[in-house]
Amino acid sequence: MPHAVSPLAPKSYPELPAIAGVRLATAEAGIRYKGRTDVLYVALDEGTQAAGVFTRSKCPSAPVDWCRENLGQGHARALVVNSGNANAFTGIKGRDAVALTAKIAAQAASCEPEQVFLASTGVIGEPLDGSKFEGVLADCARRATPDGWLEAAKAIMTTDTFPKVATRTATIGGVTVTLNGMAKGAGMIAPDMATMLSFVFTDAAVAAPALQALLARSTERSFNCVTVDGDTSTSDTLMLFATGAAGGPAIDNADDPRLEGFAGALDELLVDLAQQVARDGEGARKFVTVRVTGATDAASARRIAFSIANSPLVKTAIAGEDANWGRVVMAVGKAGEPADRDRLAIWFGDVRVAVEGARDPDYNEAEASAVMKRDSIEVRAHIGLGAGEATVWTCDLTKEYVAINGDYRS
Amino acid sequence: MPHAVSPLAPKSYPELPAIAGVRLATAEAGIRYKGRTDVLYVALDEGTQAAGVFTRSKCPSAPVDWCRENLGQGHARALVVNSGNANAFTGIKGRDAVALTAKIAAQAASCEPEQVFLASTGVIGEPLDGSKFEGVLADCARRATPDGWLEAAKAIMTTDTFPKVATRTATIGGVTVTLNGMAKGAGMIAPDMATMLSFVFTDAAVAAPALQALLARSTERSFNCVTVDGDTSTSDTLMLFATGAAGGPAIDNADDPRLEGFAGALDELLVDLAQQVARDGEGARKFVTVRVTGATDAASARRIAFSIANSPLVKTAIAGEDANWGRVVMAVGKAGEPADRDRLAIWFGDVRVAVEGARDPDYNEAEASAVMKRDSIEVRAHIGLGAGEATVWTCDLTKEYVAINGDYRS
Repeated sequence: MPHAVSPLAPKSYPELPAIAGVRLATAEAGIRYKGRTDVLYVALDEGTQAAGVFTRSKCPSAPVDWCRENLGQGHARALVVNSGNANAFTGIKGRDAVALTAKIAAQAASCEPEQVFLASTGVIGEPLDGSKFEGVLADCARRATPDGWLEAAKAIMTTDTFPKVATRTATIGGVTVTLNGMAKGAGMIAPDMATMLSFVFTDAAVAAPALQALLARSTERSFNCVTVDGDTSTSDTLMLFATGAAGGPAIDNADDPRLEGFAGALDELLVDLAQQVARDGEGARKFVTVRVTGATDAASARRIAFSIANSPLVKTAIAGEDANWGRVVMAVGKAGEPADRDRLAIWFGDVRVAVEGARDPDYNEAEASAVMKRDSIEVRAHIGLGAGEATVWTCDLTKEYVAINGDYRS
Repeated sequence: MPHAVSPLAPKSYPELPAIAGVRLATAEAGIRYKGRTDVLYVALDEGTQAAGVFTRSKCPSAPVDWCRENLGQGHARALVVNSGNANAFTGIKGRDAVALTAKIAAQAASCEPEQVFLASTGVIGEPLDGSKFEGVLADCARRATPDGWLEAAKAIMTTDTFPKVATRTATIGGVTVTLNGMAKGAGMIAPDMATMLSFVFTDAAVAAPALQALLARSTERSFNCVTVDGDTSTSDTLMLFATGAAGGPAIDNADDPRLEGFAGALDELLVDLAQQVARDGEGARKFVTVRVTGATDAASARRIAFSIANSPLVKTAIAGEDANWGRVVMAVGKAGEPADRDRLAIWFGDVRVAVEGARDPDYNEAEASAVMKRDSIEVRAHIGLGAGEATVWTCDLTKEYVAINGDYRS
């Protein structure tokens, strides 16, 4: 990673505890990078339940196809993630590579290939050599331990400048359970149904159908509220694995009241990871929260919020610490959603800059400029038509974004 | 304009002939800029017919509202355009400024205020002082001459690095008519129904309803096929004025076969101006034509083409002269339109880089790289599902775009 660590990176990383039934190992398989790990192997105890949400791209990667096909049976014994090559748009070779990788992993984990889940991230369109995993995964299986979560998060990084981990606890029917999660992603970030790559592990006893429902709900409130550049990946994958090792009966209904605390902890964990992705947006210098209130409904608020969060002109103004609220007006106007210029109000932080279709009579450039100098900025647009609200997270658009993406392959 | 002239600027400008019934003058009204013209005044002879298409933004500028209201009567005697201030999101003050400007212009042109059309471009949200036009427009009316088209195009520039003009001729029922056009626009360019600012003048005798129909059709094939940054302006205005001075009966049906040549010339003229806008895209170093073929229908092809043309990752790859076709796959996949990964083929220029869902077996990095070094690049995606086609024009995304937009107001 030739790029400096994002100034928005966390000052310290949380200590992730062991999750009974989960063991990790990383390796250098030399897929693309030299002198760094590029493979994560996770061993999951028998009985682990799996749930997943994936990219809505019409051109998904081969590993995404594989996971979708095998999620139906709901059981997982191993997860293999590689960085450096996305194995996307690789045709029949890509499918063969996926099958070979699953076979090698199944041998290492003493399970069926269908119980192996796979994710790949990196360059699109270059064939992935599945034989690179030969020997590597068996060795990982021998070395796997319950710790090493930060190393795991590092092994799956591409243009990320810091590893992204989070942990939470909850109780289910009196039993304390733990959730550990990791994510990678910095560019090509505009999840629509899922996300970049993110993996969450818990020792909770929750059956696959309930896990799936909880995961889908939490995704809507977390990763699906993040954008870096409006470009949706071919590889977006978010998976949740529950070993059940904490004990108690497996709960199979997502609406079971005993799951309330767990669902809340899952929400919080995914929001934490999703915000870390925006904080590591390629070239990011500012973390931006876009809040839309007063839209006709929540869906409309969300579309307006993304119109603001994806606008290159809004994002470059923020990069330039310029309180250019006229561009927020533009982005509201182009969203195609109900809006009335003469009811619109806009804030940067707590400074109202526009109200009732014109500059705020009390507008003070110095106050607004002071807000823009912060490294975390809230942009709020009040539409004045209803009660619809939405919040999305993004980052600014800097010259570094262009530099990172203008020479990624070279 | 502190920015260097786009390397994609025309090497020379066409000489625009006089159009009978049209006289031009420019002035320095000191609206924002110093030491340059910022007002264009166009006097139109009695009987001039007008047509216009405007931004679909829900937050249109005050001049856009004014033009929409007054277009119904179809007659025009004067056009006033200023740069430096868009008079957008300026509330009641903006409406007052528009009314005052129209009054001053009407006195200068000896006509009704409703026969004056107005357009403003520049910063959003700052009140425009209509009294700045006092004296200036009367002086313009005295000085107006049939030449000075390039100076006119310069007076309406903001972040443009070169003036944009074009001219064509056609015959209507044996009478030769001339069309002169100008445009401005470099950023906040993603027309949805109209465009940045563009004004076309002709001596043809065509009545307002026919003019309006022809203009709307040609807009779909020209300005509505251009994007610089996907950000739609609050001020997009394209107007067409026909003085009728060339003689012949006024034609009032757009489908009249006598208008065929005129319609073709109008198409060509608007495409020429629209492409010039992409060539002057903020920070542009490459002119990019995105062509989508084989989509299920033309509308689908168009949405896929814009998904490619607006993708920051595709645009930064082109800036980096990187034949990163994986990002084209991504952009096709995220468009939300029917696509089948395994039928997709992609070309840069005449080099096919991907076919049938994988890298072209004959892929040659050197050939693809040679294409990327050109200053005009065609990206083609063949979807393989139907006969729908679309072409859109854009430019690359460079560090200069970020620099220009990060400190526009300061």
